[in-house]
Amino acid sequence: MLSKIKLPIDCFGILVYIIPMKSKIKMSVVDLVILGFLLNEPRNAYALAQLVEKRNLSRLLKISRPVVYKSCRRLNEAKLLKSKTIRDSEAPERVIYSVNSQGKKHFYKLMEYYSSRISSFHFESNSFIWNLYHCEYKEGLKMLKNLQMELTSLLTGMKTHEKEDAVANANFCVRMVVKQYRMILATKVCWINEVIEEYIKQGGTQ
Amino acid sequence: MLSKIKLPIDCFGILVYIIPMKSKIKMSVVDLVILGFLLNEPRNAYALAQLVEKRNLSRLLKISRPVVYKSCRRLNEAKLLKSKTIRDSEAPERVIYSVNSQGKKHFYKLMEYYSSRISSFHFESNSFIWNLYHCEYKEGLKMLKNLQMELTSLLTGMKTHEKEDAVANANFCVRMVVKQYRMILATKVCWINEVIEEYIKQGGTQ
Repeated sequence: MLSKIKLPIDCFGILVYIIPMKSKIKMSVVDLVILGFLLNEPRNAYALAQLVEKRNLSRLLKISRPVVYKSCRRLNEAKLLKSKTIRDSEAPERVIYSVNSQGKKHFYKLMEYYSSRISSFHFESNSFIWNLYHCEYKEGLKMLKNLQMELTSLLTGMKTHEKEDAVANANFCVRMVVKQYRMILATKVCWINEVIEEYIKQGGTQ
Repeated sequence: MLSKIKLPIDCFGILVYIIPMKSKIKMSVVDLVILGFLLNEPRNAYALAQLVEKRNLSRLLKISRPVVYKSCRRLNEAKLLKSKTIRDSEAPERVIYSVNSQGKKHFYKLMEYYSSRISSFHFESNSFIWNLYHCEYKEGLKMLKNLQMELTSLLTGMKTHEKEDAVANANFCVRMVVKQYRMILATKVCWINEVIEEYIKQGGTQ
């Protein structure tokens, strides 16, 4: 993003800004998704936000309508996009974005980046496990069984989803992501079963 | 949290506020962790933040020093904590928090809440998989192998960590969380191996 750096001194009564010719753009997983969509076809920010919602991408990463708009602005300001304003007598003005050659380079840089590092992943329910020792045995067991039921039903849902036409006939990439979620849920079901077994065996969290 | 609601009319020249007697506090996984720590022993916000860092809790959930401070303020304002100010001639004033009976009720409510729902979980590297079809075969394969190497080395590290005294001798809850991470990493290694196999078999993402 172009950033204006204000000099400490107000030279000649005019505030002086240095605008760096090229500035670093941070690595962003949202930018990767937006550039990917724009490589398929030029779109405006509104259409991108709709696509993100339609594809249920918020399941895959922390993404929302305002985040999509911000990403478009950021990529455009960093000169990684071409923008074209469409004026139509009926509809309001629209800015259509497409990826330029610098943007394409940045896309592959992001692909390289996210294929070479695993950022930490969080499961909110682990904060419950972490604090289980504050619970009485029976109460703790009831809560563990809540989690077991929740995970088992999520796994069943995911297995059904995987067999639906929209996924079964989808491209390799989509199928692999869904497969991963199914495998992880299956692992979490195994894990909670083992946790409950051990919890019962030792009569609590001792 | 107590919130002041300003009336639209300035009655009698004095601004009128309605202070609700009881207000709803949102469900927060950070509040769960903070209440859990305070149930063990009373502490000030600084000591809590240090504990979070020492226990590497940022691996488990999105938590940071400012988030800990905010949680203390929020819980205290919601009257879920008792606070006691310690004045010492040598050190600066400290506010020590402990959990009151309302706070204890809220803790169990949070435990119940997080044991009964799985929030969506995100893996940043999936945005790379999602966009793999933009890559040439050889380039895509190289990136998939990056991910394979990364996941395999994380799994090795986690297995070593699990055998270290600090984990092996830890309480049930800590051991179960570490076990879960190891099982998930093992699943992700299986998954990437299968992805690469299928990618090679069909010569790319077709």
